[in-house]
Amino acid sequence: MHRYRTHTCGALRPSDVGESVRLSGWCHRIRDHGGVLFIDLRDHYGLTQCVVDSDSKAFQAANVARSEWVIRIDGRVRTRPAGTENPDLPTGTLEVYIDDLEVLGPAGELPMPVFGDLDYPEETRLKYRFLDLRREKLHANIMKRGAIIDSLRRRMREGGFFEFQTPILTASSPEGARDYLVPSRVHPGKFYALPQAPQQFKQLTMIAGFDRYFQIAPCFRDEDARADRSPGEFYQLDIEMSFVTQEDVFQAVEPVLRSVFEEFAEGKRVTGTFPRIPYAEAMLKYGVDKPDLRNPLIIADVTAEFAREDVAFKAFKGVIASGGVVRAIPATGAATQPRSFFDKLNDFARAEGAPGLGYIIFEDDGGTITGKGPIAKFIPAEVQAAIREKTGTKAGDAVFFSAGTEAKAAALAGKARIRIGDELGLSDKDQYAFCWITDFPMYEWNEDEKRIDFSHNPFSMPNFEREAFLALDPADAETILNIKAFQYDIVCNGTELSSGAIRNHRPDVMEKAFGIAGYGLAVLEEKFGGMLNALKLGAPPHGGIAPGIDRIVMLLCGEQNLREVVLFPMNQRAEDLMMGAPAEATPKQLRELHIRLNLPEKGA
Amino acid sequence: MHRYRTHTCGALRPSDVGESVRLSGWCHRIRDHGGVLFIDLRDHYGLTQCVVDSDSKAFQAANVARSEWVIRIDGRVRTRPAGTENPDLPTGTLEVYIDDLEVLGPAGELPMPVFGDLDYPEETRLKYRFLDLRREKLHANIMKRGAIIDSLRRRMREGGFFEFQTPILTASSPEGARDYLVPSRVHPGKFYALPQAPQQFKQLTMIAGFDRYFQIAPCFRDEDARADRSPGEFYQLDIEMSFVTQEDVFQAVEPVLRSVFEEFAEGKRVTGTFPRIPYAEAMLKYGVDKPDLRNPLIIADVTAEFAREDVAFKAFKGVIASGGVVRAIPATGAATQPRSFFDKLNDFARAEGAPGLGYIIFEDDGGTITGKGPIAKFIPAEVQAAIREKTGTKAGDAVFFSAGTEAKAAALAGKARIRIGDELGLSDKDQYAFCWITDFPMYEWNEDEKRIDFSHNPFSMPNFEREAFLALDPADAETILNIKAFQYDIVCNGTELSSGAIRNHRPDVMEKAFGIAGYGLAVLEEKFGGMLNALKLGAPPHGGIAPGIDRIVMLLCGEQNLREVVLFPMNQRAEDLMMGAPAEATPKQLRELHIRLNLPEKGA
Repeated sequence: MHRYRTHTCGALRPSDVGESVRLSGWCHRIRDHGGVLFIDLRDHYGLTQCVVDSDSKAFQAANVARSEWVIRIDGRVRTRPAGTENPDLPTGTLEVYIDDLEVLGPAGELPMPVFGDLDYPEETRLKYRFLDLRREKLHANIMKRGAIIDSLRRRMREGGFFEFQTPILTASSPEGARDYLVPSRVHPGKFYALPQAPQQFKQLTMIAGFDRYFQIAPCFRDEDARADRSPGEFYQLDIEMSFVTQEDVFQAVEPVLRSVFEEFAEGKRVTGTFPRIPYAEAMLKYGVDKPDLRNPLIIADVTAEFAREDVAFKAFKGVIASGGVVRAIPATGAATQPRSFFDKLNDFARAEGAPGLGYIIFEDDGGTITGKGPIAKFIPAEVQAAIREKTGTKAGDAVFFSAGTEAKAAALAGKARIRIGDELGLSDKDQYAFCWITDFPMYEWNEDEKRIDFSHNPFSMPNFEREAFLALDPADAETILNIKAFQYDIVCNGTELSSGAIRNHRPDVMEKAFGIAGYGLAVLEEKFGGMLNALKLGAPPHGGIAPGIDRIVMLLCGEQNLREVVLFPMNQRAEDLMMGAPAEATPKQLRELHIRLNLPEKGA
Repeated sequence: MHRYRTHTCGALRPSDVGESVRLSGWCHRIRDHGGVLFIDLRDHYGLTQCVVDSDSKAFQAANVARSEWVIRIDGRVRTRPAGTENPDLPTGTLEVYIDDLEVLGPAGELPMPVFGDLDYPEETRLKYRFLDLRREKLHANIMKRGAIIDSLRRRMREGGFFEFQTPILTASSPEGARDYLVPSRVHPGKFYALPQAPQQFKQLTMIAGFDRYFQIAPCFRDEDARADRSPGEFYQLDIEMSFVTQEDVFQAVEPVLRSVFEEFAEGKRVTGTFPRIPYAEAMLKYGVDKPDLRNPLIIADVTAEFAREDVAFKAFKGVIASGGVVRAIPATGAATQPRSFFDKLNDFARAEGAPGLGYIIFEDDGGTITGKGPIAKFIPAEVQAAIREKTGTKAGDAVFFSAGTEAKAAALAGKARIRIGDELGLSDKDQYAFCWITDFPMYEWNEDEKRIDFSHNPFSMPNFEREAFLALDPADAETILNIKAFQYDIVCNGTELSSGAIRNHRPDVMEKAFGIAGYGLAVLEEKFGGMLNALKLGAPPHGGIAPGIDRIVMLLCGEQNLREVVLFPMNQRAEDLMMGAPAEATPKQLRELHIRLNLPEKGA
């Protein structure tokens, strides 16, 4: 017989009745029914009810055991008495009568229980992470994370991609966030950086001719924590492809994401073909570049309507006169909402720094539709009809207005859209709604510095014929500000899973692109010198994307906090409370690394 | 037609003759046959011969292209003229006549060529790694590395293991090597450490109840470089299992390694059942705890023979009198070797700090065997016969002797065994010869400090009944020095792939184990506090191993240097010459991290 177990705690079935078995596991719950002890023995695979009474020579040993002790039992499998079966467990018709019991790992007093659903403070949960991880939900989340990663990996390989490992001790890269630095012992005064992403290495892998790269890649950013981003490290499904257009990237990535989501969606719907929404359209219709398409509301531009001479609403007229816009957010079925609904939305708008959200309520007035509400009277019926037409509203609906500079009006409208959808329960949450956002502008106008600057990623390829791009006059702001980049985002349920791009692989185009934004070759060399050298020695066209693994797992586990899907996360203060990191270094270590501390003054 | 290719450069077959195709790739080699250009177009998948002559409108463009330029060609597939086929290429019966050619990525002057086998200095190869990686051998090695990792991962999953990701920004762990430190911005004066191995996290994963853990784990050690260990980072197949004995670990890991090696051995034999060799036996028979079993020679102890009164060889007698030993290394068939063979081995022994290697040559002297050589005359025929018996030698063989303290005699004998085997060509190199080394001693005598100390891993479980262990008298050195640990190594062709152990999961046993070695609870708490807390809250028996991925790949690629199997390695000075790491940090970065430089004085 095996030293610890003949079966796992999830393995026994009715056909095992009568067998002598050996199990090992944790005492999940111990119930004392007056001289009879019921021990629910738990391991990774399941739970088996074990029973011992005073007739057993194991009774004394069992009587000592407490919750979370690790024990080994020998016993006989028998059918549970009728009426005591547990249909929720695969082993639920059986129990094991304990003949022998050995304590393998006793447990002291528990700072938090494993059995039960009581919530515990984050600090306790993280300090005793190994206990928290024994709890059913978190244990299942972590296993699901592993299964999702396995599935992603398998599908990438089936799609012709190869997995590579890129360096973790490397050079600083131009990703924009703060690097973690690692002092070099061998090179005094020099530092490695942990990769914010393996961006340059995956491009170099393409330049080295490997054609199809992926990696479940650890990435490191020294940024303050957010719920959906661990302080410190996170993982991304890093992807890069050679000899591809943007369309090829979509065709490679979309089926992987769709099928992984279908596999783990537990019945929720997953978008069939991901819609592709140009950035400008997304900003108009959803007020944001990561629209939550579960929300059916679509914002419309009604600037022209409010600009009409017969409209007398001065606040909006003033906005329009100074170059602003008016956006309309439909509120389907809102006409029956109480006054407080409209007041709350106004409060929300003011909290966002806007003067308020104007609105019209459309009511059926004996066959004709009339607009109600504070500003309706300033807007002729004909214009109201035009607004209904543009927003797809009808009697029984309302429409809210957001006015301001284009950016501000869009942002407020976007937030209002989400709130209105949520308040009215319009979103079908039983789905994973994907889309691609495309056609990001290459450049934008920097109003502060009165100059053209990069809009998103300076290293993306402009969507502009090469010779014409090289010939561009930097003073031709209109043409330049209209240039789109081959850059895209993948969005699910309002969460940006990743940006991606076709990379600028032509040094001449890159030099021109930087020149247009006012950066000389020196800046480019400094930020991107290693890559630039590589691009000059035979680089293929290439592009990729890097969906965040942690975010994917959060979506599929229905969790709001990364802590629930990462095995050993740090807390929000970037501390590992269990292992005690970060910690002080010894003077010898600091000496070896050629650094000394430079602590803030007390009270500073 | 796709923007870049209808086929890869390895895809075309005779059935494609007559088709119009589009290919993209690197100009591997360009030959100008007087007005006809042959371009071998290369991508990740293969090579296709492309042809253009002055009849083609693409001729001028083709004439500009140089080696390693990335081009796109359109053309028609045709059969190569008879006699010009290349049977080594899957595309070797075909060529593509170029109708159109576009330069996708030109290349400047190459610091090293891709075509050809010329060797280039390490510095050039690493600085232009992306070029080096385009070369056939290195490209194939990296792909093989990926395939090996895929295979390991698949087999681990099929064996019921689950993959987890453990933290990379973590606390210092008691692994013995030097940590890489990462200064914390949020916690002035504190540092993260990069994991030397995820040892504690994998044990915590077991304590958290996950049962079967593996990870292709990046590990970091700030140690000076060796050929078989990258400076900085390396990967291991990290494995841990709960409720297991040492035998279970062997049964889980051995089939994975055997089948992966069989898969990638390219015809070389792989050990069927890995022999298990106790540490003491390995040190005797092979003079080392990582024996190369391709070498058939087995060392024997002949101390008793040389101690006999009728043996007159004083040098060895003196060694034995002061507690030393004499080991005999057989040299099969060495009798026919010239004098220089024996002289060279003596020189080698002196280079190792020994006075020399005594030897006897056994010759067939008309039916009886006589010993020849400088020391034979001191050893009676009867003793020579006993030595032949112990070493399995016969007429025509020789035997060498290594004398000294047990450790020194064993070490010299072990090295001599390898040299003799190599010189005589006795090793069958066409195999991967595996073994387990078991039964490492738990403790050893520290002669300098005249006390008992840990021998290998203080955290392994002693192979000793628990109650008896807890009751041990620390003064009972004889018993204690005989205790073996549940600790083992896996060795292939003389390379240690990994140590492993059944862990000490009982805090009481660990405390006792440290006490025996003279370490108080405070030391244990300091080195291992987080783990010790976890072990006190219900820990299962568990154990594991962590075979080095880079070493496995090196063995299977037949490479002696890690640089040949790692995508982007650092050089021996721990520098990334391509990306320029490590590099100086900005004053702002240093301020944010609460450190300042402490540079060595010039000329110091």
